[in-house]
Amino acid sequence: MKLLIMNGPNLNLLGQREKDIYGERSFDSYLQELKGMFPEVELDYFQSNVEGELINRIHEARGVYNGVILNAGGYTHTSVALADAIGGVQELVPVVEVHISCILAREEFRHISLIAPKCKGSVMGFGLDSYRLAILSFL
Amino acid sequence: MKLLIMNGPNLNLLGQREKDIYGERSFDSYLQELKGMFPEVELDYFQSNVEGELINRIHEARGVYNGVILNAGGYTHTSVALADAIGGVQELVPVVEVHISCILAREEFRHISLIAPKCKGSVMGFGLDSYRLAILSFL
Amino acid sequence: MKLLIMNGPNLNLLGQREKDIYGERSFDSYLQELKGMFPEVELDYFQSNVEGELINRIHEARGVYNGVILNAGGYTHTSVALADAIGGVQELVPVVEVHISCILAREEFRHISLIAPKCKGSVMGFGLDSYRLAILSFL
Amino acid sequence: MKLLIMNGPNLNLLGQREKDIYGERSFDSYLQELKGMFPEVELDYFQSNVEGELINRIHEARGVYNGVILNAGGYTHTSVALADAIGGVQELVPVVEVHISCILAREEFRHISLIAPKCKGSVMGFGLDSYRLAILSFL
Amino acid sequence: MKLLIMNGPNLNLLGQREKDIYGERSFDSYLQELKGMFPEVELDYFQSNVEGELINRIHEARGVYNGVILNAGGYTHTSVALADAIGGVQELVPVVEVHISCILAREEFRHISLIAPKCKGSVMGFGLDSYRLAILSFL
Amino acid sequence: MKLLIMNGPNLNLLGQREKDIYGERSFDSYLQELKGMFPEVELDYFQSNVEGELINRIHEARGVYNGVILNAGGYTHTSVALADAIGGVQELVPVVEVHISCILAREEFRHISLIAPKCKGSVMGFGLDSYRLAILSFL
Amino acid sequence: MKLLIMNGPNLNLLGQREKDIYGERSFDSYLQELKGMFPEVELDYFQSNVEGELINRIHEARGVYNGVILNAGGYTHTSVALADAIGGVQELVPVVEVHISCILAREEFRHISLIAPKCKGSVMGFGLDSYRLAILSFL
Amino acid sequence: MKLLIMNGPNLNLLGQREKDIYGERSFDSYLQELKGMFPEVELDYFQSNVEGELINRIHEARGVYNGVILNAGGYTHTSVALADAIGGVQELVPVVEVHISCILAREEFRHISLIAPKCKGSVMGFGLDSYRLAILSFL
Amino acid sequence: MKLLIMNGPNLNLLGQREKDIYGERSFDSYLQELKGMFPEVELDYFQSNVEGELINRIHEARGVYNGVILNAGGYTHTSVALADAIGGVQELVPVVEVHISCILAREEFRHISLIAPKCKGSVMGFGLDSYRLAILSFL
Amino acid sequence: MKLLIMNGPNLNLLGQREKDIYGERSFDSYLQELKGMFPEVELDYFQSNVEGELINRIHEARGVYNGVILNAGGYTHTSVALADAIGGVQELVPVVEVHISCILAREEFRHISLIAPKCKGSVMGFGLDSYRLAILSFL
Amino acid sequence: MKLLIMNGPNLNLLGQREKDIYGERSFDSYLQELKGMFPEVELDYFQSNVEGELINRIHEARGVYNGVILNAGGYTHTSVALADAIGGVQELVPVVEVHISCILAREEFRHISLIAPKCKGSVMGFGLDSYRLAILSFL
Amino acid sequence: MKLLIMNGPNLNLLGQREKDIYGERSFDSYLQELKGMFPEVELDYFQSNVEGELINRIHEARGVYNGVILNAGGYTHTSVALADAIGGVQELVPVVEVHISCILAREEFRHISLIAPKCKGSVMGFGLDSYRLAILSFL
Repeated sequence: MKLLIMNGPNLNLLGQREKDIYGERSFDSYLQELKGMFPEVELDYFQSNVEGELINRIHEARGVYNGVILNAGGYTHTSVALADAIGGVQELVPVVEVHISCILAREEFRHISLIAPKCKGSVMGFGLDSYRLAILSFL
Repeated sequence: MKLLIMNGPNLNLLGQREKDIYGERSFDSYLQELKGMFPEVELDYFQSNVEGELINRIHEARGVYNGVILNAGGYTHTSVALADAIGGVQELVPVVEVHISCILAREEFRHISLIAPKCKGSVMGFGLDSYRLAILSFL
Repeated sequence: MKLLIMNGPNLNLLGQREKDIYGERSFDSYLQELKGMFPEVELDYFQSNVEGELINRIHEARGVYNGVILNAGGYTHTSVALADAIGGVQELVPVVEVHISCILAREEFRHISLIAPKCKGSVMGFGLDSYRLAILSFL
Repeated sequence: MKLLIMNGPNLNLLGQREKDIYGERSFDSYLQELKGMFPEVELDYFQSNVEGELINRIHEARGVYNGVILNAGGYTHTSVALADAIGGVQELVPVVEVHISCILAREEFRHISLIAPKCKGSVMGFGLDSYRLAILSFL
Repeated sequence: MKLLIMNGPNLNLLGQREKDIYGERSFDSYLQELKGMFPEVELDYFQSNVEGELINRIHEARGVYNGVILNAGGYTHTSVALADAIGGVQELVPVVEVHISCILAREEFRHISLIAPKCKGSVMGFGLDSYRLAILSFL
Repeated sequence: MKLLIMNGPNLNLLGQREKDIYGERSFDSYLQELKGMFPEVELDYFQSNVEGELINRIHEARGVYNGVILNAGGYTHTSVALADAIGGVQELVPVVEVHISCILAREEFRHISLIAPKCKGSVMGFGLDSYRLAILSFL
Repeated sequence: MKLLIMNGPNLNLLGQREKDIYGERSFDSYLQELKGMFPEVELDYFQSNVEGELINRIHEARGVYNGVILNAGGYTHTSVALADAIGGVQELVPVVEVHISCILAREEFRHISLIAPKCKGSVMGFGLDSYRLAILSFL
Repeated sequence: MKLLIMNGPNLNLLGQREKDIYGERSFDSYLQELKGMFPEVELDYFQSNVEGELINRIHEARGVYNGVILNAGGYTHTSVALADAIGGVQELVPVVEVHISCILAREEFRHISLIAPKCKGSVMGFGLDSYRLAILSFL
Repeated sequence: MKLLIMNGPNLNLLGQREKDIYGERSFDSYLQELKGMFPEVELDYFQSNVEGELINRIHEARGVYNGVILNAGGYTHTSVALADAIGGVQELVPVVEVHISCILAREEFRHISLIAPKCKGSVMGFGLDSYRLAILSFL
Repeated sequence: MKLLIMNGPNLNLLGQREKDIYGERSFDSYLQELKGMFPEVELDYFQSNVEGELINRIHEARGVYNGVILNAGGYTHTSVALADAIGGVQELVPVVEVHISCILAREEFRHISLIAPKCKGSVMGFGLDSYRLAILSFL
Repeated sequence: MKLLIMNGPNLNLLGQREKDIYGERSFDSYLQELKGMFPEVELDYFQSNVEGELINRIHEARGVYNGVILNAGGYTHTSVALADAIGGVQELVPVVEVHISCILAREEFRHISLIAPKCKGSVMGFGLDSYRLAILSFL
Repeated sequence: MKLLIMNGPNLNLLGQREKDIYGERSFDSYLQELKGMFPEVELDYFQSNVEGELINRIHEARGVYNGVILNAGGYTHTSVALADAIGGVQELVPVVEVHISCILAREEFRHISLIAPKCKGSVMGFGLDSYRLAILSFL
């Protein structure tokens, strides 16, 4: 079992910005914990602030990973192109959508997820624990 | 660990109606499987088509359960009263929202969840497996 | 031929409330007339103000009735759950939607029927005569 | 009893176009069957693709027919002028609105009927049988 | 003078939930105080989380009470059926709408009251004191 | 000075339909009076219920009339094509828009005039007297 | 206890205009009656049609009155500046909003109150009796 | 015959501002010409930039003038209070709405006239000649 | 290869109206040039300002032409009936949509094409050259 | 260099109301500081809560000032008349728009500035420092 | 004649993803065919999933190509920046917009093209043949 | 004092494109002038057309610059991700928003700035001089 965790824009700041929403922990430290929890899963990690790089990486995931776990950050709500990318590979590599906070409880422009309809499933609102649940959806 | 699974309107028809969306399996049979998966969890089950009965049951869950797993069906999108009920108990008994299908991939009047902002987290689109992930969010 | 006529919320007040819209006649008296018109049809009647009871009754109609004639009253415009119930049984027991007045000629929040897309057909605006036409649609 | 059945734009193609929505039967063949069902009713028929010709014919129906049965096709949703025509004659010759399919189950621009508020009543979704029910509303 | 105070969904949690919005006091304790303030008024009380039970109780209030004081909670914003019920009895038993907080200062889906147009009057935003003012409107 | 008065759909029913809105007088009788008031103006008249015939007549007015006085009836609110026609000839023959009633005081779908931006000016709400004022705008 | 009753634009016409909505009584005569009902309250009165004068008077009420009772008339729905004024003084002098008729039962542009979220509470729909209830909210 | 011409905000700048829209002529010079055209009419003139002063003047016009000709400028689109004032006096002194340019051909926030439904009639788009037509509507 | 070029309302004014948008050339002169460019194609031409005539002509094109090139003018944005006609024949005779200017660069009510989803393809914004490209789509 | 600083409604309360948004300092004290910072500029100050007085003062600024610095407060979002005034003088005396807080970060009805398109430029969100920057835009 | 064909996000998956919408053919194979069809045209090709790279390439096309043929994929509907880029170079190098499918026949968020108003013209819905027609628009 | 000026997409074309909106001067030449005006400030410059590169650069500005001056071009209106980036660093390095033209005076899709609520302040409409004012906001 080989999975790719992808984080979109600004998630490299996790643990540093808006801690009341996102919590105090850095993603790197959490990633180590996740790897410890799932020794049987090969977990790769990719973060980018560039929409097109996320799209490229999703294309390249075909044939390499059993699944992708994607927190698309701000692109969740605006990127038709990212949604198209997920739709284009969905039969070859399923993508699970993850959000740390509940997008429906924040500003109105965050209420819609363009990528959800193309994903295998969505997990949101559990804090960082959303990633663990997403991995479990592949097990 | 004691959890209550609550299903809202029409979910008693699971396995019988609109099988392309909801799958072929009855919920009872799936519930047995869930109990087998989690022997350490006490799982109760409640289904009702009546909005007020769901609200009553959420009130009564305080002090009895460690958590509630709720698929509110059609009331997800229309019931301010149900959302208020969850908000009213959220510090005493957390509620996790579950959907079998991705609500954002269906008719537009299903795109909004009024209850999501009051829930501990949301899991949707994984088919019946959404329930398993919701239980795991308490473990 | 066995049909169930279901009336939703407030239709028990028929002949008593807002007579300029709904007319002066009680539904009971009209029901007797209907039975006289169609001696060959077994006509049952159910009225409830509770959304969930209407849903329950629609579920139970499977295998019992050849069809259901439903005036969902105010739930017509707001109940996703009722629409789901009709959709869930539509291959087993067809439902015909009935309205006494023309919903498009009243307040804007009454212009949309959520249940119409799930029904076999809709009859509206003919006053109580809408029920007679709905029965005729099964003959 | 003398009734005029009016079909609006494209209904001359019935049985030829989009058969999954409108069925396989031509209107002419169905009209013969209708005449056979109601020997006591004098049934005239008029079809036009021209909005103004439909309006003219509704004006001329005053004093000639006991009622008009109108399937306005695409003009249902866009013609204020046709609605005005029906409103202008409604005390002299009642018009019953008919649709083969359920307009609320199709594209959103078909959800509104501008003519319904001016009609005696509306019947929709029963396939060609909608016309039979409309005739019965005059009997 | 005989009045019925009706509380809708979740108001049985008063004093327990979201105290920053609704205050710390239980409704029962306040009800006793109200009875003390108005010894000349016979005050009955009814609370239900079920939309249809509220509708039933409004129907039954005809001929029994001089007026109804209704805090419809979350149904205020979504229930066409409840609004119809109030409209159906308004000449026989007037209903006064009450809200503890100002609905216009909360989430946008609470800005509209479907029942206000059918009520004798509305009082909102005074905290529990809104009930006292509503009683005074009958004196 | 040669002017063309054009009336759109249903205005041939003037004096016969919805008299509370449009008054009791037929347009023919009023036209005679207008001719008497303005002996120095050559007044032609054209009425049609067909959108395209109105467009054709506007095209033909170039080089023949000093101006057109147009009551477009229901097409006022829906006809982009009619607005285009007026725009296409506006430098050669100015069109003045006329309405008997105030369109802003009627149903919401009548609030917008597509043709007003292409017209020399608009007069509305004076009853039949609106036509007299329109003629005066050319003198 | 010293209160200021403020009436906004056109309320000086009370008893003269639109009597079916506002009733037949002048405000002056009603004010005398109010003073008789509450001999223990010092009631001042101010009416203006000028938006800025109402704002000025609200500013000046600080330190002078225990509360303001405001019927803002047409400014209720459009004046951000008036809402700002109330918000600016709300900790020093509470304002209670009053309407004679139910604003939700009238034209759509009257459905929103910009000032309600800044007021201590709102009373509407009781006719002139709304003012009495507003005074009682300070006692 | 005694008429009052009222100009709202910024119309004192006529002939000085935005000449491509409003023309080069000052209103004073045009007013003299109007008086010359209609020696039999007593024409008074009032201009104010203050919304409340326009409302006051409309109130005072009762019993003094046979009619008011009002160009409400920017208040046309925003002033509920001004519309109420016109509605309050409309049986005693009719108001005719005037605009120099076609409001439907300008910015979208100018498309709606709140005052039109309360006026006897509206004239717009003829340049300054709109005022002459408005006077003629009283003759 | 036999093609029908159809022009909708006002396109008979080409070269005469709004030359900044549509250019200076008449369609007749351009049609001759087109015929010269494609000697192997039989090109027929039809123009009408009447919506229903365009619908009729599309019906009649079945079995006669290999394709239709349609510039529907103002009906592009408003005619559900025309869209239905194209949909009704699309398997028998494909229709290609043409616009001289870019409809997305003009007024907002021109941004939507109701007919595009029923057409084989769309070409817009190239000036008259759009017609040449449309012919080439059949070669 | 002679500049006029104009403050609209409620800005006389600065330092007294909603200090979390507007800060603790009175405008008078800040004005003295501004004068100290720019000894070479003649700074006049005007504040009014009356919309029409602001309009008058803008008219009068022509020929007197080199520029106007305007914080229009709540009128920013609703006053078409004020925008017209600025537009009317913009070639003679430029107006710079100023806001203390970021209007896009507050309630939705504050997101639009009607006056911005008529102004020379806009400065917002810097607290009182916005005024200093506005002055600097003239230097 | 030197042209640049640019494909936006996900079009590198052509022939692999969603074949019911985009067809089975890879773009490379089609490109070879295009080159064969137009031996007199020098055709370059560029594909990127990165919005900014597409913008950069459009800037660089000035002075190098006679035209650009752009299928912007998902960026068509969301990229103001891409539209600005095309607008910035449009006098130096014209861009023709291309879509394989009809964007108006797909999800609503694809109905608007932000780039169309800046392009020389648009071709859509012809499948891959849209590219051939776009090249022909330069010949 | 060390500041970073960042320009978003297409601003590298300044002085070359749409000169009526953006002026004739290149940014490089203006940057030299700015450096001359503020010898005491260390001014760095960064331009990119790639959304993610702008985000990256904002992240990297923490601890390096005293402030960032950002003209986000087309991303201003569409980039939730860029707004998140600014929000994520706002306590460490304040960002001031700059626009050359007034965004409220251009197309409607440019009226909203997603980044403004996260910025220290905004300056727009002064032409290139907006940058000077933004620098002054740090002094």
